Amino acid sequence: MSAAPGDVEKGAAAADTGAAAKDGAPAGEGVVGAVVRRWRRQDLLDKSGSALRAAAWALSLLAFVVMGANDHGDWKQFDNYEEYRYVVAIGVLAFIYTTLQLVRHGVRLTGGQDLQGKVPLLVDFAGDQVTAYLLMSAVSAAIPITNRMREGSDNVFTDSSAASISMAFLAFVCLALSALVSGFKLAKQTYI
Amino acid sequence: MSAAPGDVEKGAAAADTGAAAKDGAPAGEGVVGAVVRRWRRQDLLDKSGSALRAAAWALSLLAFVVMGANDHGDWKQFDNYEEYRYVVAIGVLAFIYTTLQLVRHGVRLTGGQDLQGKVPLLVDFAGDQVTAYLLMSAVSAAIPITNRMREGSDNVFTDSSAASISMAFLAFVCLALSALVSGFKLAKQTYI
Repeated sequence: MSAAPGDVEKGAAAADTGAAAKDGAPAGEGVVGAVVRRWRRQDLLDKSGSALRAAAWALSLLAFVVMGANDHGDWKQFDNYEEYRYVVAIGVLAFIYTTLQLVRHGVRLTGGQDLQGKVPLLVDFAGDQVTAYLLMSAVSAAIPITNRMREGSDNVFTDSSAASISMAFLAFVCLALSALVSGFKLAKQTYI
Repeated sequence: MSAAPGDVEKGAAAADTGAAAKDGAPAGEGVVGAVVRRWRRQDLLDKSGSALRAAAWALSLLAFVVMGANDHGDWKQFDNYEEYRYVVAIGVLAFIYTTLQLVRHGVRLTGGQDLQGKVPLLVDFAGDQVTAYLLMSAVSAAIPITNRMREGSDNVFTDSSAASISMAFLAFVCLALSALVSGFKLAKQTYI
């Protein structure tokens, strides 16, 4: 974990307090403990955010590849249906977004500039939340037509569509959780 | 605005600091100013949260009433189509949710118990966010079938459906913003 400068200062201040208040050792430990707990929580937030985005990356890749390969001639082509084209478009968009986010955060881990400012966190949160809404929208649009097709006949085309929709839904779940994490970090930042 | 007990204590502490540090008057004013600003921000958050939920209440009421009245015989009945039934169901759900929230917060304003604890804020946030996702889902499901019908013919049935979908979309926007507000309040609460 790369500690932000603010964190280091806080840690030093807490250590000073602990040293100065010799008679209040438990209180001093309490402050240090709180700071350590805060670091751990920050670390957990960073890790879970990255893990969720990595999962969303893989799932959105699967979603649009499976749907894009869903071409079995005649009426069984995904690009005859606007709902399925929408799933592909949003899948590609989610894939590009999560790729850029992973690169951006990867660069930070290997020593780039710090991304704990207000604006980078706002970008994280807004991106996650908007992409989550778009994925939910694409999934919901594609489900009714797939249902109707499956009432008629169950074949490789409808099965692939259902698989792609499931992947997109799981990508939505990951990004919705990631939006929670980054929203929490953003709100915390604005109050420190 | 009903100040939380924590706020009052903080205000008193800030006033003490200001009185004690006579030589550092600007610093003391800064602290009092910060507390006043925080109260104002809290008030603004409370008001905007309630206003957004009230708007979502009216819009979701319109959405399901317009769709529920959309019955013109033959194939022009909303309950022949699962997408439109879904819009009605989610519209009713959003209406019930926002009604309960408005009653709950109204009771608080007229002197009930305080809703600034962690659990009430979590209920606010989770409710807003989940209802926003459901509305987005209902809107997205209903749009493709309406598009297809309008390619064939534009009549009072498709127009009513489009109106209902628009209302549901606006209700989604209000609840998504309300989820932002209540998420911000929740994240702030967990760090105080």
